[in-house]
Amino acid sequence: RRSFHASPRWNLRTTEMSEKDLGDLKVSQKRLMEELQHSCKWGTGKRYGDGPNETGMSRLSLSDGDNYVRDWFVDTMRSLNCTTTIDAMGNIFAVRPGLRNDVPPTFAGSHLDTQPSGGRYDGILGVLAGMEMIRVLNDNWVETEFPVGVVNWTNEEGARFPLSMCASGVWAGATPIEEAYNLHSVIHDNATMKAELERIGYLGETPCSYEAMPMAAHFELHIEQGPILEAEKRKVGAVVGVQAYKWFTVQVTGRDAHTGTTPLENRADALLASARMMQHAHRAATKYGARASTGILTLEPGSTNTIPGSVRFSLDVRAPSDEIVAQVEEHCREAFTKIGAHEGVQLEGKAYDYTEGGTKGLPCGVEWTVDSVSPAVNFHPDCITCVKESAAGLFGASEVGTLTKDMVSGAGHDSVHASKRCPTSMIFVPCRNGVSHNPEEYATDEDCAIGAQVLTGAVVRYDRLRAK
Amino acid sequence: RRSFHASPRWNLRTTEMSEKDLGDLKVSQKRLMEELQHSCKWGTGKRYGDGPNETGMSRLSLSDGDNYVRDWFVDTMRSLNCTTTIDAMGNIFAVRPGLRNDVPPTFAGSHLDTQPSGGRYDGILGVLAGMEMIRVLNDNWVETEFPVGVVNWTNEEGARFPLSMCASGVWAGATPIEEAYNLHSVIHDNATMKAELERIGYLGETPCSYEAMPMAAHFELHIEQGPILEAEKRKVGAVVGVQAYKWFTVQVTGRDAHTGTTPLENRADALLASARMMQHAHRAATKYGARASTGILTLEPGSTNTIPGSVRFSLDVRAPSDEIVAQVEEHCREAFTKIGAHEGVQLEGKAYDYTEGGTKGLPCGVEWTVDSVSPAVNFHPDCITCVKESAAGLFGASEVGTLTKDMVSGAGHDSVHASKRCPTSMIFVPCRNGVSHNPEEYATDEDCAIGAQVLTGAVVRYDRLRAK
Ligand SMILES: NC(=O)NCCC(=O)O
Ligand SMILES: NC(=O)NCCC(=O)O
Repeated sequence: RRSFHASPRWNLRTTEMSEKDLGDLKVSQKRLMEELQHSCKWGTGKRYGDGPNETGMSRLSLSDGDNYVRDWFVDTMRSLNCTTTIDAMGNIFAVRPGLRNDVPPTFAGSHLDTQPSGGRYDGILGVLAGMEMIRVLNDNWVETEFPVGVVNWTNEEGARFPLSMCASGVWAGATPIEEAYNLHSVIHDNATMKAELERIGYLGETPCSYEAMPMAAHFELHIEQGPILEAEKRKVGAVVGVQAYKWFTVQVTGRDAHTGTTPLENRADALLASARMMQHAHRAATKYGARASTGILTLEPGSTNTIPGSVRFSLDVRAPSDEIVAQVEEHCREAFTKIGAHEGVQLEGKAYDYTEGGTKGLPCGVEWTVDSVSPAVNFHPDCITCVKESAAGLFGASEVGTLTKDMVSGAGHDSVHASKRCPTSMIFVPCRNGVSHNPEEYATDEDCAIGAQVLTGAVVRYDRLRAK
Repeated sequence: RRSFHASPRWNLRTTEMSEKDLGDLKVSQKRLMEELQHSCKWGTGKRYGDGPNETGMSRLSLSDGDNYVRDWFVDTMRSLNCTTTIDAMGNIFAVRPGLRNDVPPTFAGSHLDTQPSGGRYDGILGVLAGMEMIRVLNDNWVETEFPVGVVNWTNEEGARFPLSMCASGVWAGATPIEEAYNLHSVIHDNATMKAELERIGYLGETPCSYEAMPMAAHFELHIEQGPILEAEKRKVGAVVGVQAYKWFTVQVTGRDAHTGTTPLENRADALLASARMMQHAHRAATKYGARASTGILTLEPGSTNTIPGSVRFSLDVRAPSDEIVAQVEEHCREAFTKIGAHEGVQLEGKAYDYTEGGTKGLPCGVEWTVDSVSPAVNFHPDCITCVKESAAGLFGASEVGTLTKDMVSGAGHDSVHASKRCPTSMIFVPCRNGVSHNPEEYATDEDCAIGAQVLTGAVVRYDRLRAK
């Protein structure tokens, strides 16, 4: 087909492509998965099976492993004829030129950092699928009207520096850069984000902002991280939005005392109080149709025969709407204070007395800190349409209805922030048992390739749409 | 009075002392407290007030602070004309000769190590009172019939090397020395007890055993660490025994999963399960008349947006009798398994369904480890009598009934192990608010001196008793 076109190099313009031409832009499942597994050799985590790829990932943001995979990503994208830009938060933008280059690129993106005990797909698949998309465009001599790029966002997980979707938030103007720079590592060391960016050489000169690095659109492929697609035997989720969430730290203060000599009624046991609060947060989440979870809990002083006088725990509250998150927060703030004071609480008309059958002790104080707020998001109809058309192109009109589903994301993603500054949407593929943030996180090679295929088709379709 | 006696040096034989002579053996409150505060300059802990002594202690066993205070203790006891012996567990025995020295000494003893966030009295008072006792005997030219000593036992707290009353347990033959040597530090480093004994130069050559270092009796002065004496406005507890206790580690295993994407019913949340278990242990303790406490809890992986798949927590169960501890253990073993499986549990005819009002998730596994067992102990009538007579000598016959009380210790002490190999008893003095294992632990100077006075009187009386 190349001979039909005039240019010696770029000879398939997206605006001139037929449905058949679009269908011929095939990602290579083999290449995609080989590159993905290759990229996981930096920051490898817990082994769970004997196979060569049966380990999780532990590639905390700005760790040495993250440094190596970034270097590899930059080198590879350059070898694919992309220009690369590092911004002041270490975000990496790799751009393949289009016919016109005085306008913002259409981006595919996600993140290469992982949880401390995470898997090989969360974030990584999205970036690697972007890389594969560029390869497909190159191999097929596709000439996009506008530039097309791939972005690796820094510290999406918020696992090391405790703010999720961190650097996309700075880019979008939602998070002041100084706040991000001053985040302290919660793991081992106490290094700041700025110091770690400097240490690994990713404190770039380009300002981190949607003005310095504008985007025409942002598409993100991701594993679902939940059980729905698998349970319904579907292949693709067209993500129409993201649920709301809010992170808190709750500090419960009682009094250190001897476990052996202190009668139950003389105790201000911060851990027992926290245990009751966590149980109550779960009940409140159930009642309000939300999710509440504690992932971090630290206590002091930490001795078998000392009742802890101080406990801090994280509280992650999520729900389809900002209102429900607010309800759960409001309820829990009041209830935790009462639980700390050994008073009964009411939840939707039902009374809970956590001291029932036990012993009322001395009161514990409760203090809340809000760590981050991520309101519910609706993605852009144009992007959603491109994703759905891309899926229809792949599955055919008769199958697309049973194989795809409109979904709301349970997790936050960099697309949440991107959506504030440009049309955005996401593509989900199923993952085994709906498990994520776990070394055993797994998506089949076939499903990963389907996701990359739908992503490539969506970006190309968006390029055509922009030209209209 | 000295001139009435023949010997130029030892001129007051205990067997020849009148009640008035005994009463004249006065401890110096000022000296006792100056020495005690001085000894707290090594391993100082959290400050809680502005006064020079308003800090707690953080002198973990075999730490550098423990090393310094040991060196000071050895030097001081030598300067008081005692011979000192270090055994293979670092226990320090300082002995003042008697008229006959071919028989075991009568000891006063306790420990100089503290909790990570402990106070200035727990253990320290007992050793320093022993030192003051030797000074009183020296100053008054008292000639005991048999040798009298002071012992500092290693790692009583079990806070760094997780076995309380550790080296007295080895001495008594209750704990194999290899088990103690192989204990790993739970704080910061992971060093073994043997390596740390070597490092600080307290791996002595004398075997650690009641055969190599026999005792005629063991008296221990200690703060009560509970609220009873203070509440009843009494000055001295004549301790007749120690309650039973058992330490466990409970491992709860669920599945790491994403907090945002994982529906409540798809979670095996090890922390929520643990929270329910801790609450249930508290209920069971209340019902059975026991105490149950968790002082250490660690979880993995420890990320705000990951449901913990693994939680380990300590469980400390205490009760007046071994039978009650066994009942609580048996009940909790069964109940925790059920709670992990989201089943209801029965406690003394009452049903508890911890999933009520919440969402049943996936099951969590539960495994128990027994870390240590300390059966209930009764102290020796001869020693208890000496303590009571000493208190009566101090308070007078009319006051002794209101100012002293027979008590059972809520905490374990080295006297628990000592009592297996020689007549033993303890003396308690009140502490402010009954608080211990807390930087603010406090006993008045007057009460400390009363305790040291009763201790000295009890040891001298025991020396007389042995001579009969
Ligand atoms: N996708 C993902 O795990 N993002 C981290 C932010 C969140 O906790 O939702
Ligand atoms: N007295 C004291 O705190 N001993 C430690 C052993 C125990 O936990 O009871």
